[in-house]
Amino acid sequence: MREVAVIGVGMTRFGVSQNTNIEMFSEAAMEAINESNLKPKDIEALFLGNMLGSHEEGQVGMAAYAAADIGIPNIPTTRFEGICASASVAIRDAFMWVASGHYDIVLVGGTEKASVMDTPYATRTLAMGSDSYYEGPAGITFPGIFAMLAHLYSHKYAIPLPKLKEQMAMVAIKNHQNGKLNPKAQFQATIRDLMEARIARATQRGEPVPTWADEMEFLRDIKVNPVIADPLQLYDCCPFSDGAAALVLASRDKARRLTDKPVLIAGVGQCSAGPLHNQKDFTRMKARILSAKQAYTQAGIEPQDVDLCELHDCFTIAEIVATECLGFFEFGQGSQAVERGETQIGAKIAINPSGGLKAKGHPIGATGAAQVCEVVKQLRGECGKRQVEGARIGMTDTLGGDACTLCNIILKRGW
Amino acid sequence: MREVAVIGVGMTRFGVSQNTNIEMFSEAAMEAINESNLKPKDIEALFLGNMLGSHEEGQVGMAAYAAADIGIPNIPTTRFEGICASASVAIRDAFMWVASGHYDIVLVGGTEKASVMDTPYATRTLAMGSDSYYEGPAGITFPGIFAMLAHLYSHKYAIPLPKLKEQMAMVAIKNHQNGKLNPKAQFQATIRDLMEARIARATQRGEPVPTWADEMEFLRDIKVNPVIADPLQLYDCCPFSDGAAALVLASRDKARRLTDKPVLIAGVGQCSAGPLHNQKDFTRMKARILSAKQAYTQAGIEPQDVDLCELHDCFTIAEIVATECLGFFEFGQGSQAVERGETQIGAKIAINPSGGLKAKGHPIGATGAAQVCEVVKQLRGECGKRQVEGARIGMTDTLGGDACTLCNIILKRGW
Repeated sequence: MREVAVIGVGMTRFGVSQNTNIEMFSEAAMEAINESNLKPKDIEALFLGNMLGSHEEGQVGMAAYAAADIGIPNIPTTRFEGICASASVAIRDAFMWVASGHYDIVLVGGTEKASVMDTPYATRTLAMGSDSYYEGPAGITFPGIFAMLAHLYSHKYAIPLPKLKEQMAMVAIKNHQNGKLNPKAQFQATIRDLMEARIARATQRGEPVPTWADEMEFLRDIKVNPVIADPLQLYDCCPFSDGAAALVLASRDKARRLTDKPVLIAGVGQCSAGPLHNQKDFTRMKARILSAKQAYTQAGIEPQDVDLCELHDCFTIAEIVATECLGFFEFGQGSQAVERGETQIGAKIAINPSGGLKAKGHPIGATGAAQVCEVVKQLRGECGKRQVEGARIGMTDTLGGDACTLCNIILKRGW
Repeated sequence: MREVAVIGVGMTRFGVSQNTNIEMFSEAAMEAINESNLKPKDIEALFLGNMLGSHEEGQVGMAAYAAADIGIPNIPTTRFEGICASASVAIRDAFMWVASGHYDIVLVGGTEKASVMDTPYATRTLAMGSDSYYEGPAGITFPGIFAMLAHLYSHKYAIPLPKLKEQMAMVAIKNHQNGKLNPKAQFQATIRDLMEARIARATQRGEPVPTWADEMEFLRDIKVNPVIADPLQLYDCCPFSDGAAALVLASRDKARRLTDKPVLIAGVGQCSAGPLHNQKDFTRMKARILSAKQAYTQAGIEPQDVDLCELHDCFTIAEIVATECLGFFEFGQGSQAVERGETQIGAKIAINPSGGLKAKGHPIGATGAAQVCEVVKQLRGECGKRQVEGARIGMTDTLGGDACTLCNIILKRGW
């Protein structure tokens, strides 16, 4: 198997967009192709992640139309769907087609217009990612599933729920701080900025001025941070976003001629789980542990070698649990690690320096590709104020559904 | 790259099923696994084609739940979507994962519950496979697109439309004859059987007895064969079916220990086209020509070496055009070849000995896998009355949308 490099990355700003899925993907793809010092005609195949194009725009078979839009209709194009991990499984697959020697240069990424589905419909629509026979009919949606995870975590590790809620709030505060430093993030404001804006607005309007002492008190206030599914409040949940992200992968030989900022894919992993009732302990997701193990083994590294990780913080509790399953912290220690600041940029391991799904946004089928974009830019040292200094090894982690698809990618700097 | 064999195949009977997508796939998968002398635990990864599970059953991320249903939740599972070619692109991808040396034994296939969408809704829903910005808003659906193809073919090759309609009818007659001999086919009746049943029913009921002289006159009768999109009548169109099909792929080394009926994947090809306005000549589909060329080149064969081909007869005109694009007949000669009987079992090349989409049925995301099932069984000599005697090389051809995704697989008998 040959080594494979990421030689160009691109993404739209995440948020609410008037552009179509394909227009967004073309913007990201052309950014990645230009950065690779290539032309579209140099691309040999396209691997595209998308979850719900048929519900968003009445479009299936999207990969073919996406390739045509950047002027390369007559290449093999394939759409991958692994719920929120759609782009990540596309990247792992694209990696194999280059590593195997079949292609030298391919385009891979994802796109999604999740904001076109208003929240109640989006939550119901996204619930199609859970088992439609065992889980959907029970009326459960993802906020409910991850709320139960928070209760389970609190119970299992004897962390009082108010304490855990504070630790979860610290995840949101951190990720918003990181997102503020990311020009592509949907929310470029800290929780404190949001709090101060509320105070300023009330003052300006002559309304009673709220008296929150700090962000934590602000987040406890259910008038500004309503309960979604107890114990999760609004700021524990990531948004549904529009956006696209793309990467150009090349064999090491081709890459050496095209870039002087080498980032190699060192390891990949993917694993599924069945419906929730098949999963023994949702705080220790076996599929994630196995997927990460594949990636670590292939890369020949241990969790402690990872400098930064972009992981699937669809809910704040999800980030905490992920950091444990990936081996960065002992089981039951993840929430305390957040409290000790160990997941901030510059600390033990930078978790979600991009702002994560929480602040950067979550255009479902694009998320895995955006995670790789951030890791590549971090390993190249191009992240400005949110730069993880000296980062040599970065990792991504994407969770589809209620752990039914897990995918991990490890990247390293240098040849 | 290693050689890859198909060591087991399985499929449900196509038609209308009360089973879920996953139940159907499990039935097909267990048949394929049993035939391979394996247990589910021997499977290292699952590649699943499905087009519209979210619309049929409110299910995305289906691959993970499918693996769990056969008792192997913790493997990598991926859903592929390439419209009607969904299973074919999954097979080509699975082939690469085995050929590259990464996996030794994988499961691949497709499943679809297309009949749950009643016809008007299904036609509209399937139209999501055409370009949702350029084609959908024009009100065009696939019967209309392929009707225009028939007009174009008639005009381009100066074949009077009544003549072409007869030749198209002969495609339907042939495929129903083949389907009658296939116990897994949705329609196991010839057009003559259907005609005689109508006559018998009228006689029994004391109604005026129709006086059709033969099948051709029966098919001209718009009372029994209504116009769908001129010149296409009902019997020019394949049905929307429920069904699933599955294959076990293995590296040559593993396969030698597991089967004494070797069938190898000799070549694969895949190519996309953009929206229709990008396609210069829909009678000479460039994407199909390029895809087939990839497969022929890899297999080291020419079109005349192919003994049988399961190809995408979503409409009768589609079969005629496909036989030309694949190189079995000169451009403009395909319809005459049908008339001369050259595409029947035992003639120049057996086209759709299974009955094709037309009579075997078309469960969209499963179709490409069912095509490979038929070719494998033909190459093993297991097809009874529809056997293509002495078949050594077989091919599949699946078309997604209006040629936006084409995929071809060539299989050969023997080590």
